[in-house]
Amino acid sequence: MDVGHPAPVRPGGEAGGAVGGAVGGEVIARCRRLFDPALREAVSVLHPWGAKMAAFTLGWSDIDGGSHDHGGGKGLRPAIALLSAEAAGGGAESALPVAVAVELVHAFSLVHDDIIDNDERRRHREALWKAYGVGPALLTGDALLALAVRQLADRPEAMGYLSTALVELVQGQTADMAFEQRPWDGPDQVSTAEYVEMVTAKTGGLLGAAAAAGVATGGAPELADRMWEMGRHLGVAFQIVDDMLGIWGDPGITGKPVHSDLRRDKKTYPVLAALGSQGTAARELSALLVSGTADDATVRHAARLAEEAGGREAAQMLAERHLSAAVHLMDMCLPGAVDLRALCDSLVNRVS
Amino acid sequence: MDVGHPAPVRPGGEAGGAVGGAVGGEVIARCRRLFDPALREAVSVLHPWGAKMAAFTLGWSDIDGGSHDHGGGKGLRPAIALLSAEAAGGGAESALPVAVAVELVHAFSLVHDDIIDNDERRRHREALWKAYGVGPALLTGDALLALAVRQLADRPEAMGYLSTALVELVQGQTADMAFEQRPWDGPDQVSTAEYVEMVTAKTGGLLGAAAAAGVATGGAPELADRMWEMGRHLGVAFQIVDDMLGIWGDPGITGKPVHSDLRRDKKTYPVLAALGSQGTAARELSALLVSGTADDATVRHAARLAEEAGGREAAQMLAERHLSAAVHLMDMCLPGAVDLRALCDSLVNRVS
Repeated sequence: MDVGHPAPVRPGGEAGGAVGGAVGGEVIARCRRLFDPALREAVSVLHPWGAKMAAFTLGWSDIDGGSHDHGGGKGLRPAIALLSAEAAGGGAESALPVAVAVELVHAFSLVHDDIIDNDERRRHREALWKAYGVGPALLTGDALLALAVRQLADRPEAMGYLSTALVELVQGQTADMAFEQRPWDGPDQVSTAEYVEMVTAKTGGLLGAAAAAGVATGGAPELADRMWEMGRHLGVAFQIVDDMLGIWGDPGITGKPVHSDLRRDKKTYPVLAALGSQGTAARELSALLVSGTADDATVRHAARLAEEAGGREAAQMLAERHLSAAVHLMDMCLPGAVDLRALCDSLVNRVS
Repeated sequence: MDVGHPAPVRPGGEAGGAVGGAVGGEVIARCRRLFDPALREAVSVLHPWGAKMAAFTLGWSDIDGGSHDHGGGKGLRPAIALLSAEAAGGGAESALPVAVAVELVHAFSLVHDDIIDNDERRRHREALWKAYGVGPALLTGDALLALAVRQLADRPEAMGYLSTALVELVQGQTADMAFEQRPWDGPDQVSTAEYVEMVTAKTGGLLGAAAAAGVATGGAPELADRMWEMGRHLGVAFQIVDDMLGIWGDPGITGKPVHSDLRRDKKTYPVLAALGSQGTAARELSALLVSGTADDATVRHAARLAEEAGGREAAQMLAERHLSAAVHLMDMCLPGAVDLRALCDSLVNRVS
């Protein structure tokens, strides 16, 4: 699905369309072949019950434990780690522990997020808490995080970034949750600047850690701080596209209920930008959100109003601005990083 | 409250009674004065909402955020870290990051445990999830863990132990939860050996990390592996005493509902040992547990039967055996560790 509306400007002057996505997909597949065995090995030490739940949430098995590859996540974060290390000259393998750690932290955060947000679906299946109960799911999230930390315990050059990302991730999630309590209008409404700060922490931190710890273990620690910034910009771009998919995306592709963010007062960038546009559609959208978006027709109407008020266009533009900033930093640090560049491009013009 | 029934043998031939407890209390207070400011500083970086919840769960504030010192936890784990570093010659201050990290991990585990176990009370107050909701509490637990990891990110000599303890903690909790699904009798019943393995991981790991990382940062990394083992034995002793307090302790002192472990099929050592004793009381206890312990009279009867069947005596003996093993290792590693020794002694003969 192309959420690029209006037609996305390809940063760096490259030809656009689905090419970025296809190249990104190939690159991700190559990385997955590399890190998947290491990830499975890391998880294999868990208590059998914990391992079963971890396998379910990572997409390796059905609820009854039967082997089945549901694909799991996209593997974006490990791919960034491996490709960063490769471009730094250390070989992708040098960042395998980083790749495993960031994927485990990501999996941990999804498991806990679904409990916090009461989300029943994840990746076209039941969320872990829905399948096994809140307590077991919570504990499985903790287990994934514990394994992530152990991966990098003896690599302080990588652990610094991972632990900072972890603190930011939780801070960002707390801010996101606090936003839900705030009103849609009036002096306490959430600003787009607050949103960007929140997603920089919530999504950018872990992408930053993947890139920074990737180059650090790949032999170029002097590039790590700039790659950390690169990843944070990339994270903002990625999250804004995710927000757009959450409003205008096809649930058959996203694997989540349609409009779930709109239903529960989640402050997403497209909606905040639409509200800030001051026109008729913005005023109507504000009134509608204030009075509540319980039924399907109202939610669909809110999505239309958000687009009319320019929220979709503003979101696309901001995503591309952050992608450009990321690509600029990447080109400075790792001018030969063709695959990493292709991967990043594909994120903002996601086709799947 | 003295759970020492029969009268405890004082390991190492010291005079017994309340002395160990009083000395242990003074030692803990000295350590608390040292690490409390560092702990508060570590927590101060949190999002205001997260900081409020963290302050509540650490006993620093009321539910409305008003400043109030409820005492929080005993501070046993940080005391072990600081005293281990001191005895190793590095000065207690050298282990401050370790002390803060282990206390944060402990606080994280309590917050998540209360959600998992549906426990509504903790330290004479509402559990965090009961006060603020499951989602916010879960996230606060994650925040405490993230801060713990960041404390030691640049200290691989300590982080190795902390991360291993973290994995063990979660594995132990998973095993504990899996035990609850298993029957009280028949071939699938939980053995006392399985129990010891579970608590070594669940409780022993973090005490081991406190001791090992304490000596490692205190300048004696060569002692760390033995101090890790020391802490694990201490943890088993400590947990068994906790189990005893949970069955025969005064809820006014423990801060938990009386007999809560018995009510929800928790496999604790005194009960498992009682069931293994083969006498009339054991058979009656088994039948009673199998049929369920819903009402107060039944639970009180179960507690009496567990004592009659020798569960209390067996638990006290095993706690002392593990304490002896811990003290033996401590004397080998750190013969001059008077305060650490007093602290450990006080744990098994707890008076508060």
